[in-house]
Amino acid sequence: MSGGMFISVDWGTTSFRSVLVGADGLAMDARESAAGIMSVQDQAFQAVLVEETAVWRRLHGRLPIVMSGMIGSRQGWVEAPYLPTPVDLTALGSSLVWIDGGPLSQIALVPGVETRDVTGVPDVMRGEETQILGALETSGRRDGLFVMPGTHSKWVWVEGGRLLRFQTFMTGEVFAALRGHTILGRLMGDNPQTFDTDGFQRGVVAGAAPGSPGHLLTRVFAARTHGLRDDWPPQQLESYLSGLLIGAELKSGAELGDGGRPIAIVANAKLTELYANAAGMLGLPIERVAENLAVAGHVALVRQGILEAHGGA
Amino acid sequence: MSGGMFISVDWGTTSFRSVLVGADGLAMDARESAAGIMSVQDQAFQAVLVEETAVWRRLHGRLPIVMSGMIGSRQGWVEAPYLPTPVDLTALGSSLVWIDGGPLSQIALVPGVETRDVTGVPDVMRGEETQILGALETSGRRDGLFVMPGTHSKWVWVEGGRLLRFQTFMTGEVFAALRGHTILGRLMGDNPQTFDTDGFQRGVVAGAAPGSPGHLLTRVFAARTHGLRDDWPPQQLESYLSGLLIGAELKSGAELGDGGRPIAIVANAKLTELYANAAGMLGLPIERVAENLAVAGHVALVRQGILEAHGGA
Repeated sequence: MSGGMFISVDWGTTSFRSVLVGADGLAMDARESAAGIMSVQDQAFQAVLVEETAVWRRLHGRLPIVMSGMIGSRQGWVEAPYLPTPVDLTALGSSLVWIDGGPLSQIALVPGVETRDVTGVPDVMRGEETQILGALETSGRRDGLFVMPGTHSKWVWVEGGRLLRFQTFMTGEVFAALRGHTILGRLMGDNPQTFDTDGFQRGVVAGAAPGSPGHLLTRVFAARTHGLRDDWPPQQLESYLSGLLIGAELKSGAELGDGGRPIAIVANAKLTELYANAAGMLGLPIERVAENLAVAGHVALVRQGILEAHGGA
Repeated sequence: MSGGMFISVDWGTTSFRSVLVGADGLAMDARESAAGIMSVQDQAFQAVLVEETAVWRRLHGRLPIVMSGMIGSRQGWVEAPYLPTPVDLTALGSSLVWIDGGPLSQIALVPGVETRDVTGVPDVMRGEETQILGALETSGRRDGLFVMPGTHSKWVWVEGGRLLRFQTFMTGEVFAALRGHTILGRLMGDNPQTFDTDGFQRGVVAGAAPGSPGHLLTRVFAARTHGLRDDWPPQQLESYLSGLLIGAELKSGAELGDGGRPIAIVANAKLTELYANAAGMLGLPIERVAENLAVAGHVALVRQGILEAHGGA
């Protein structure tokens, strides 16, 4: 492979994932830690990176590093720009930010992406653009409607390798805030409940029913009233609230595409099954896409010769 | 007035309001305290009521009491039933629950109201039904779309004196949860901000824009991205989030009516102006209705002779 061996780093808010990539583009080793950017004191990002990559450096010498994720945000190491949509994902390599890594080798930082909807409301992503590039590379496709569910779910519409538009849904974080800090949690018990399929699926249907955006503010109240009036047990109420938010997200997120393509779910097995279950209830076709695609995105960039272009590795 | 002098009590979750009502149906004195049902230890509701009414009892002897609000909930003194919609509000007096007040006189407790939407999802109210009765009595009207904004906003549709349907919007509580317990609060500062009209009105327009319920999950994210990308100051971001939720609520809540009537706002001056401002942005006609209408509802019940029917006062 053009570029030789390198280290791929997906550095998020709460997690740090690094992969040692061989000259053939395949993973040779991988590490994961809780050293997300929020846990790094006094901007000591370089020290963390030196420590996290020490073993590989001893074995293989100084290696170039390609990073993406929140490490490029204002709260991170160096603020990388946001590229405005539409973004040709295969051209991300021409907008890298290079960091002097000190005892490390050269470090390439992938920029984020920003968009504005028709009314001028902004949205941003950091890291997901690299994962989408990875998804395109590993699947050979050039188009698709992708969802990366989680605390802040990203919905991304790609045509011909170009990221045209995207939206962030605060589904996971809104669930946690409602569950933990409103009256809805009162009937759900103090601890997380076991998943209840029936409650979840009823929630999905209720959340995706026709209505306007404000109806979400009234529908969530049913996660209390079903307990008060129908004696639903705590686990059913909790799964209902989860399903309600995910059903609402799926219905609205699917509108971002052209309606002709399945929803490609980029997530771990557990979240993938949850979203696949919900999509099934709503008759929305889906595809399962592997998670942790940042490394595939980084490999694609290295294959384009970004390291040689910057002075070789 | 039929029924003579009595004490009107609006006993909610966090507040206790009592009014001494003369035989002419007019308020002679009023008290307000923080003795909401959540603050009452060991079910000592009778002791609280004895204390709160002691002065009036010394002056006027034992007086009948009419109560409404969360005091009739499962967490209250005695659980009063929920009457299913449609409810003839002028007939609430035939469904009172009577409590033995011990050293007090007879105590009448107004029932709550429950409803189910077409999919069987339940909703409940306690206290608002009495305020709506009060609104009908004081205005002489028999119809209307009422909103009682707050932590849990109630939207109520009344025709011919009958409460036909209603919805609870968790607007105030969702705002507090998002403001205090999600990333949206990060850019808003630690303390409540001063109101920003421009931010609020932009939020109203964004929140009421066409979309499906799940779009609320993405629109709220703009209360962060406007700060990140447009450098909006904290007070503008906070007022934007407030406007966004209220705009969404107004748009969806207005659909509960028949479209032909103004929205009657039942709230204190501050909340009334906030909702009137938002409604103005959306071209929704409104009417301002006085707050604290529980006493008017209680007077209406007493005028119907509920006290004599139960054995005189």
